Amino acid sequence: MSAKVGVIMGSKSDWDTMKLACDVLEELQVPYEKKVVSAHRTPDLMFEYAETAAERGLKVIIAGAGGAAHLPGMVAAKTLLPVIGVPVKSSNLNGLDSLLSIVQMPGGIPVATVAIGNAGGTNAGLLAAQMLGAFDPELLARVEARRARIQQEVLESSETL
Amino acid sequence: MSAKVGVIMGSKSDWDTMKLACDVLEELQVPYEKKVVSAHRTPDLMFEYAETAAERGLKVIIAGAGGAAHLPGMVAAKTLLPVIGVPVKSSNLNGLDSLLSIVQMPGGIPVATVAIGNAGGTNAGLLAAQMLGAFDPELLARVEARRARIQQEVLESSETL
Amino acid sequence: MSAKVGVIMGSKSDWDTMKLACDVLEELQVPYEKKVVSAHRTPDLMFEYAETAAERGLKVIIAGAGGAAHLPGMVAAKTLLPVIGVPVKSSNLNGLDSLLSIVQMPGGIPVATVAIGNAGGTNAGLLAAQMLGAFDPELLARVEARRARIQQEVLESSETL
Amino acid sequence: MSAKVGVIMGSKSDWDTMKLACDVLEELQVPYEKKVVSAHRTPDLMFEYAETAAERGLKVIIAGAGGAAHLPGMVAAKTLLPVIGVPVKSSNLNGLDSLLSIVQMPGGIPVATVAIGNAGGTNAGLLAAQMLGAFDPELLARVEARRARIQQEVLESSETL
Amino acid sequence: MSAKVGVIMGSKSDWDTMKLACDVLEELQVPYEKKVVSAHRTPDLMFEYAETAAERGLKVIIAGAGGAAHLPGMVAAKTLLPVIGVPVKSSNLNGLDSLLSIVQMPGGIPVATVAIGNAGGTNAGLLAAQMLGAFDPELLARVEARRARIQQEVLESSETL
Amino acid sequence: MSAKVGVIMGSKSDWDTMKLACDVLEELQVPYEKKVVSAHRTPDLMFEYAETAAERGLKVIIAGAGGAAHLPGMVAAKTLLPVIGVPVKSSNLNGLDSLLSIVQMPGGIPVATVAIGNAGGTNAGLLAAQMLGAFDPELLARVEARRARIQQEVLESSETL
Amino acid sequence: MSAKVGVIMGSKSDWDTMKLACDVLEELQVPYEKKVVSAHRTPDLMFEYAETAAERGLKVIIAGAGGAAHLPGMVAAKTLLPVIGVPVKSSNLNGLDSLLSIVQMPGGIPVATVAIGNAGGTNAGLLAAQMLGAFDPELLARVEARRARIQQEVLESSETL
Amino acid sequence: MSAKVGVIMGSKSDWDTMKLACDVLEELQVPYEKKVVSAHRTPDLMFEYAETAAERGLKVIIAGAGGAAHLPGMVAAKTLLPVIGVPVKSSNLNGLDSLLSIVQMPGGIPVATVAIGNAGGTNAGLLAAQMLGAFDPELLARVEARRARIQQEVLESSETL
Repeated sequence: MSAKVGVIMGSKSDWDTMKLACDVLEELQVPYEKKVVSAHRTPDLMFEYAETAAERGLKVIIAGAGGAAHLPGMVAAKTLLPVIGVPVKSSNLNGLDSLLSIVQMPGGIPVATVAIGNAGGTNAGLLAAQMLGAFDPELLARVEARRARIQQEVLESSETL
Repeated sequence: MSAKVGVIMGSKSDWDTMKLACDVLEELQVPYEKKVVSAHRTPDLMFEYAETAAERGLKVIIAGAGGAAHLPGMVAAKTLLPVIGVPVKSSNLNGLDSLLSIVQMPGGIPVATVAIGNAGGTNAGLLAAQMLGAFDPELLARVEARRARIQQEVLESSETL
Repeated sequence: MSAKVGVIMGSKSDWDTMKLACDVLEELQVPYEKKVVSAHRTPDLMFEYAETAAERGLKVIIAGAGGAAHLPGMVAAKTLLPVIGVPVKSSNLNGLDSLLSIVQMPGGIPVATVAIGNAGGTNAGLLAAQMLGAFDPELLARVEARRARIQQEVLESSETL
Repeated sequence: MSAKVGVIMGSKSDWDTMKLACDVLEELQVPYEKKVVSAHRTPDLMFEYAETAAERGLKVIIAGAGGAAHLPGMVAAKTLLPVIGVPVKSSNLNGLDSLLSIVQMPGGIPVATVAIGNAGGTNAGLLAAQMLGAFDPELLARVEARRARIQQEVLESSETL
Repeated sequence: MSAKVGVIMGSKSDWDTMKLACDVLEELQVPYEKKVVSAHRTPDLMFEYAETAAERGLKVIIAGAGGAAHLPGMVAAKTLLPVIGVPVKSSNLNGLDSLLSIVQMPGGIPVATVAIGNAGGTNAGLLAAQMLGAFDPELLARVEARRARIQQEVLESSETL
Repeated sequence: MSAKVGVIMGSKSDWDTMKLACDVLEELQVPYEKKVVSAHRTPDLMFEYAETAAERGLKVIIAGAGGAAHLPGMVAAKTLLPVIGVPVKSSNLNGLDSLLSIVQMPGGIPVATVAIGNAGGTNAGLLAAQMLGAFDPELLARVEARRARIQQEVLESSETL
Repeated sequence: MSAKVGVIMGSKSDWDTMKLACDVLEELQVPYEKKVVSAHRTPDLMFEYAETAAERGLKVIIAGAGGAAHLPGMVAAKTLLPVIGVPVKSSNLNGLDSLLSIVQMPGGIPVATVAIGNAGGTNAGLLAAQMLGAFDPELLARVEARRARIQQEVLESSETL
Repeated sequence: MSAKVGVIMGSKSDWDTMKLACDVLEELQVPYEKKVVSAHRTPDLMFEYAETAAERGLKVIIAGAGGAAHLPGMVAAKTLLPVIGVPVKSSNLNGLDSLLSIVQMPGGIPVATVAIGNAGGTNAGLLAAQMLGAFDPELLARVEARRARIQQEVLESSETL
């Protein structure tokens, strides 16, 4: 089945975080593709990726980057698909620079920003699944089951304090 | 036609920002509803709103709040619909508190966070439209036309420097 | 004797910090209960916990959470008991996000916020004891004795510089 | 009836914020006293105030200050009563300095910190009332009625969007 | 004479700041061109501008933007000319977001970042002039004369304290 | 010879930083005393220390503390001697809380604040020596010799790049 | 009588803040001189000022600057006199940049930093007076009288709440 | 061939970062010199270095420093050459202090600031090469080849996810 979600990242060093998005998509059986696409080092590839995303069947793009993180916003400028931005933790400012570079988009071009680092990686996958799930009851049921399982884990963890 | 997008806010004082989301939805002919729902002052209403959102036909929820902004995250915890969070500018910390309270969600429950303040208000409306537009070509065409118009405005503004 | 203080936390990973609150309560012979209650992953449990807290005899609730820390504020919205919020150190922003998410509550629903991390854990236990101690002279005497002991430790530590 | 709550502030310029605490106490019929007590300009008065607070019948102290805000913490060091700290908005750093100076107390001496500025002023009064209300059902009923009234206002405000 | 410096900005609202760069270039007789080029609203124009800059004779590009300011970094990714980035003051975070989005570029693609706001506007013009002046003694002499004049103004201002 | 400088700190855990101040004073042959004095845990000792400092012959007080660092400012409020404040690095906010708590004193009571952490420890000793040296040519000569030695070290370090 | 304190500032626009230091020195009858000396625009004058300060009879230098505030630290590098740094409020970052640029000096060259803005201006004058007062009982008596007067003002202000 | 770029740093401890600038210059065959020059510990050397830089044939200066980083700005005040500032990561504030001390220069004296830490070290070398390359086609070709190589590395890294 062709990919519904495109997972891209500015550098291979972002993979630890972005793999968590892929893990969730896999778990929820959402077909996806993954690629390193750098806004600054491969700008033409980035534009081409964004321009062709919709026609290749993608419904959502997840883009992760750190520091002066321009990838999510620039991809968003070149596609009408919703773009989810993951602020990867940066080495000096702990991802605060990544977060502000991604979330503070000007009126006109939104990026759906999630949390800095690993929580953001996981949640990007879930958010993509929920966007698709709003139009796909079977997928939604899998999201719901995942929530129920996690809720159960919380309840059980309380016993072990 | 029944509402596809629910626009809620923690206080009537958030309306100036959230009205911009409604303006975009109106312009793009996306049916929506709007309501003041406070996480802290009307918690039961908030839960009820979130629990019934999907069955009432909503596909996306836009939630705006300021300061210790718990509305978007709590609504997200009670629905499987994608939730867009708008960090409203706060009186003392300029919305940095609103932003962190909304975006730093733990793994499991995502909130699609947009920019602080007015840019975020506008972009929340656009992001909702793009989520729906991924499954609605006519809506997508209206989003595209809006972008083209704004692009034209930028080009023309350059003449007046 | 039934619990006077409820100690809750958003995740088992908060236990290292929240255990310090429990240690103080134990030391001061304040009966307490402890539980993992997640605002985002077990929202209904959270509401039920808060709603029944007073009738179960609790006089104070201590709630710890990290990141977009909604637990203390949401519990405060659902009970008239005083709620003490402990901002647990978060992995990326060192608890600054936790602090702002907890302390910047809107007018109407207060949370008694203590320091980020371990100092906050200890102080949450002490603050609860002081709230109760204002109406319980014997408990207050134990709080006073604890202060005297710590004062003595400071004086002695000076000898070893 | 003798004062149950002491409201103090580091400077008369803090009065706009601290008056909101007094307004709440008045509304809830909690007897209180108010005074300017400066940690830095009247340190002996501050110590005397804190040392005699309990014997004068106070059950809670609310202390507001801005900038290097030492008043709440120093009063807390000299009394066993619970101390609520209000970070008053400062002229240059918007109260972030006030907040950190008040909330980041070391293990051993807690300060129950509320929000920066006016929301904190109001909430300090409410928090004091809730602390007392845990042992005073009539007061608690008045707190509850206040919440119900505010909830009603939220619901009505929604009609006027 | 054909333009040596290209002055671009993400929005006409940046003009007040970017005009200061143009004023300096004019004063120092450095030929320049100016244009509104938005990274997010006119991405293709931006790429075309950057790609053709060198062949059109430009030696330096000055790019100003606010918020999630992607213009300077994206232009830098598409040209080998040195790019000077001006962080325009943003409405909510005072330009801290603009600064971090511009300066925190990954290794490989530098942006020469100057101060936030008006000082940055003026200094962008001067920095461009100094880059050119290193290879143009007459221009350098004009830069030197400007410095001498400003030094004189400082000395005279001291008399009027 | 009786102590001219008093070195105090809020906790023995501050000793690593404050020892650097003592090392400088020793090296420059400035007689000093050292003591743990906690604003929050030994408030009366703190006041007594400050009140008697001048009559015991001290000319400068160096006070180090972390977090909600009230020691330097409170000592300054109780003596007319110049007080040097050292913001000790805190475990969660890296000493930014310590810095703001110490430096943002209200008009009327100054604290001479130095850098966060170890650089501040060393510089507190040097600043005290310079204050005394302005009235003690022999001490000043030793300060000057120390600077010359350090300058020499910088020059030599350049050879080893 | 020749000046004991030199008050310098990086720009005439700093005068509003630095005048407060001069006012205090005048009130306490401490002879002083004042001058605009810019680290960046009159660097040679700055070095000459610092090098000759001691021989001209100065005992303390007060230096105010904003933004990348290099004046206090560079003057401190060129004199053995104690240097008090005043972080003037900057137009974009509210003086946080000024504060960090002044206070974070490396080990070896201290700057006695006071609060941002007007409180810092006043306190710089007082700190200089206290440094001199440690060796001048009559001056110290005037400092003491000033404190007593301000204490009285606080006490009286309490009556007018 | 005589040096075209001068690489200086405030302390030998900055070498790890500044070596990356030297590595790039070596790789691109740009002749350079390197030296430890401390603004605070060797101020006269710093002035002499800056004053003689142009006549010794330098075309660009790269200056790295941490904390209250005055080296880049002070060198810029004493030469008309373009100065690139590298904010070295500081031990307590992660280089945010270094960044603000370097970038927030007042109108009149620009510093071309690059990213904090290692990315900034590398980019300082590249930026210097690009400034020179605007007037040296052969050097520019080497910069272009380096970009092409790095682009290739990104493309290949994508295969290994």
